[in-house]
Amino acid sequence: MSGPQGESVSLSVDLNCDCGEGFGPYAMGDDAAMLEIVSSASVACGFHAGDPQIMAAVFATAREKGVALGAHPGYPDLWGFGRRPQQFSLGELERLIAYQIGAALGVAALAGCRISYVKIHGALSNLAMVERDVARALAHATKAVDRGLSFLAIAGTPLETEGAAAGLDVAREIYADRAYTDEGLLAPRAAPGAVLTDKDAIAARVLAMIGEGAIIAQSGKRIAAAIDSICVHGDHHGAVATAKQVRTRLEAKGIRIAPFAAPAQK
Amino acid sequence: MSGPQGESVSLSVDLNCDCGEGFGPYAMGDDAAMLEIVSSASVACGFHAGDPQIMAAVFATAREKGVALGAHPGYPDLWGFGRRPQQFSLGELERLIAYQIGAALGVAALAGCRISYVKIHGALSNLAMVERDVARALAHATKAVDRGLSFLAIAGTPLETEGAAAGLDVAREIYADRAYTDEGLLAPRAAPGAVLTDKDAIAARVLAMIGEGAIIAQSGKRIAAAIDSICVHGDHHGAVATAKQVRTRLEAKGIRIAPFAAPAQK
Amino acid sequence: MSGPQGESVSLSVDLNCDCGEGFGPYAMGDDAAMLEIVSSASVACGFHAGDPQIMAAVFATAREKGVALGAHPGYPDLWGFGRRPQQFSLGELERLIAYQIGAALGVAALAGCRISYVKIHGALSNLAMVERDVARALAHATKAVDRGLSFLAIAGTPLETEGAAAGLDVAREIYADRAYTDEGLLAPRAAPGAVLTDKDAIAARVLAMIGEGAIIAQSGKRIAAAIDSICVHGDHHGAVATAKQVRTRLEAKGIRIAPFAAPAQK
Amino acid sequence: MSGPQGESVSLSVDLNCDCGEGFGPYAMGDDAAMLEIVSSASVACGFHAGDPQIMAAVFATAREKGVALGAHPGYPDLWGFGRRPQQFSLGELERLIAYQIGAALGVAALAGCRISYVKIHGALSNLAMVERDVARALAHATKAVDRGLSFLAIAGTPLETEGAAAGLDVAREIYADRAYTDEGLLAPRAAPGAVLTDKDAIAARVLAMIGEGAIIAQSGKRIAAAIDSICVHGDHHGAVATAKQVRTRLEAKGIRIAPFAAPAQK
Repeated sequence: MSGPQGESVSLSVDLNCDCGEGFGPYAMGDDAAMLEIVSSASVACGFHAGDPQIMAAVFATAREKGVALGAHPGYPDLWGFGRRPQQFSLGELERLIAYQIGAALGVAALAGCRISYVKIHGALSNLAMVERDVARALAHATKAVDRGLSFLAIAGTPLETEGAAAGLDVAREIYADRAYTDEGLLAPRAAPGAVLTDKDAIAARVLAMIGEGAIIAQSGKRIAAAIDSICVHGDHHGAVATAKQVRTRLEAKGIRIAPFAAPAQK
Repeated sequence: MSGPQGESVSLSVDLNCDCGEGFGPYAMGDDAAMLEIVSSASVACGFHAGDPQIMAAVFATAREKGVALGAHPGYPDLWGFGRRPQQFSLGELERLIAYQIGAALGVAALAGCRISYVKIHGALSNLAMVERDVARALAHATKAVDRGLSFLAIAGTPLETEGAAAGLDVAREIYADRAYTDEGLLAPRAAPGAVLTDKDAIAARVLAMIGEGAIIAQSGKRIAAAIDSICVHGDHHGAVATAKQVRTRLEAKGIRIAPFAAPAQK
Repeated sequence: MSGPQGESVSLSVDLNCDCGEGFGPYAMGDDAAMLEIVSSASVACGFHAGDPQIMAAVFATAREKGVALGAHPGYPDLWGFGRRPQQFSLGELERLIAYQIGAALGVAALAGCRISYVKIHGALSNLAMVERDVARALAHATKAVDRGLSFLAIAGTPLETEGAAAGLDVAREIYADRAYTDEGLLAPRAAPGAVLTDKDAIAARVLAMIGEGAIIAQSGKRIAAAIDSICVHGDHHGAVATAKQVRTRLEAKGIRIAPFAAPAQK
Repeated sequence: MSGPQGESVSLSVDLNCDCGEGFGPYAMGDDAAMLEIVSSASVACGFHAGDPQIMAAVFATAREKGVALGAHPGYPDLWGFGRRPQQFSLGELERLIAYQIGAALGVAALAGCRISYVKIHGALSNLAMVERDVARALAHATKAVDRGLSFLAIAGTPLETEGAAAGLDVAREIYADRAYTDEGLLAPRAAPGAVLTDKDAIAARVLAMIGEGAIIAQSGKRIAAAIDSICVHGDHHGAVATAKQVRTRLEAKGIRIAPFAAPAQK
């Protein structure tokens, strides 16, 4: 969040969402509705979801709406939506990520759009939350493709520290609808209460975390964290209403929703 | 071929080959052997063949050997190796191509290599030989991703003219081992005699085409053509020996083998 | 339709729908709702759509609801949903189909369900409407895997005649929501008016076709046809309401909805 | 091995090999050469390798050569050749396996061939060596598809005991070219010395294991084991020569090579 908490300055925070996670004839979530709400869209790159046609469609809408675009690479596992762990060496991971970021840059160039950041998807992101070497490889691959890319990292994890160590501009995100452990990590999806569904509770918790500058764990524990972006999901029932509620409540508090990086429009 | 025929100037021509056309555990041809012979390597981008690991391996070897690198995009058809026609709109084709070129640029950036050209693969290239709109779309997508890329086009086809019309630096290639029709087009693979297999006959025909500055059709007809590059294949039995024979015979005539574009080493 | 038209006997007709056409995390249509309405479900087999998990889920529901199950094989083209033509030889087509039918039988055996028929999907079915050799190959492959399978064929096409010539029990279907040409063929999806969307008009046309024992072309032309089954779609907006309307109107006319072949429950 | 060791009876053992592990244009090993040597061929089913065309080609050759055929299902991971662990529930595994066995039965029926057994591939087989629940699920799925199928299990593992507990006819195999741990398990491929490459040493060890009725671990430890089949690999350099050497040495000892189950020819 730009601007220190509690001062009489203009505050803003980014609202990000995964987009373009359909494939061929299949849709995942309502991209058009989400792109009316968020300020940054992380676009699947064809491995865990997405294809060149879907990518281009999201890019065009994002440009029109003033939304910033990120490449959202993941494991090559369409069947499992990139949510199943896969066995790759660090070098293989770097190449998987460089491939996908490059592909996104290629399609964006054709669409006349700018990709301004990278966010890692699913099980690979989960691994990078706990494996420093993996986070380092992902940051390295990002920087190798384009050192001007920002790195959208889960606040307080090796993704944040390794992104910074690589010299990337790092934005730190919290998850609006996911429970946190006392270590400040996302509770695994399968754990009880790991996925929040009540939109009012979700919005209230986001406001509290922004206001306190801290992650609030399931136990109530606070873990101090810089917060540049809030991740809302678009791929489940009620997603659009939840995202809208988060945005409305933030704006009602005088917090402006704005991308942390340059928007898609060049 | 740089330099007019018959003059006492240094003559050179490029020798290109498709590379990196394996997938996962599967190999296609002997990339290492071919990269000792050719001056340019067109690397599959993961749709008709290839994967990020294989791409990176070819890139590294090409850089070491002073070989130039091209992105070699094709239809998304691993099962059919990109040799079966597929139904896509022009816009869809542009996005497929931009995706693949971008992916190659991404992996090359990670590997510290330069991609200097684009060559279209298989059935999509066949279509572009006869459909001007398709050739235009392919050239447009190439230029949109990076206007500094050269375009390796089959001599005398819309790929050549549309590449030039798009403002791309075009290199014109002949196929060492493929029969030509009287229209200067590649005879379909299934046609009798379409694929030449005798390495001495292949080398002799290449020399004749270079010497005469013309494509020599199956009928004996000559079609005048500027020739910057000779395509040799690496994916069949005897491929390496044939490529070596072509190179040896060209060099024996005082023709130097050199890439038409910048080599992989930055 | 069993029972001659106009007589005071119990009349029945089958209502069939494509099901299980999702993939991994992706849904296509509302299978649960459709399985409340139809009497036969044609289940995708993993090539144009579907996977073993989705197949098994549809099988279990169909068994519970007394619905009959068909294998619904198509081209290997998940990206294009099996709606793009693909180039395969007749022998290759036979093997593609035998593979998919066998796979469906395998998953059904595990689920304790019966597969009683085969219906061909999408672009491959379109091809078989006009290419007798293709229809023959598809019928041959079906019979080779299990000669007890029925063959659900588009009424009046080579699928019907070749299915019968192969000795298969053939059921003849009309499409509730697709326009017909004067030759009794489905108008291509891209043609104007090819896909009907008004549920009342759809139901009225179905009743007229059943009542007259004829396909009613876009021009109004009647082509006499035996009708055993009516295909309703589940993969678009309004699909469930349309299917329900068709069923309600048929039942209001005293026409019973019943599968043409044995239900899933063994 | 049928017949007690050391008695003057006719002894025989099966020699099995994985086959059909190419994909589309890609070959893996020399199936034609291996089918001259082995008595049983375990054919990939399209998930970790193989496609309907390749399956049919192997089936036809096996029938001609009097070789027995097995379905060889694995994880859905063409890129990783089924050698990377994948996260599936037991129910999902059952459905994956039933799908693949059914597919093999379908293609075999079309080819007029019999599939007489099932052998599990790669990382899934490795998991079943140590996870009894997984072995049980695999045996259950096999039996559910066709209770007449034999189950080719790694001797001394849960695959053997769970196959038998399911009521399947179990054949027990040793690996000619893989080192064993003191627990009688295959040493992981990545471990030093895990893959034997000297064909004379391989043949000698096979003879010793057959002669002693025991698995011989890397340490020299003997683990008593009934041995019905010897697995030779076809997918690496020297594979054919090694397999031939194993067969030659066995026959020189008077041990006949014969399938443990009915051959492909119906």
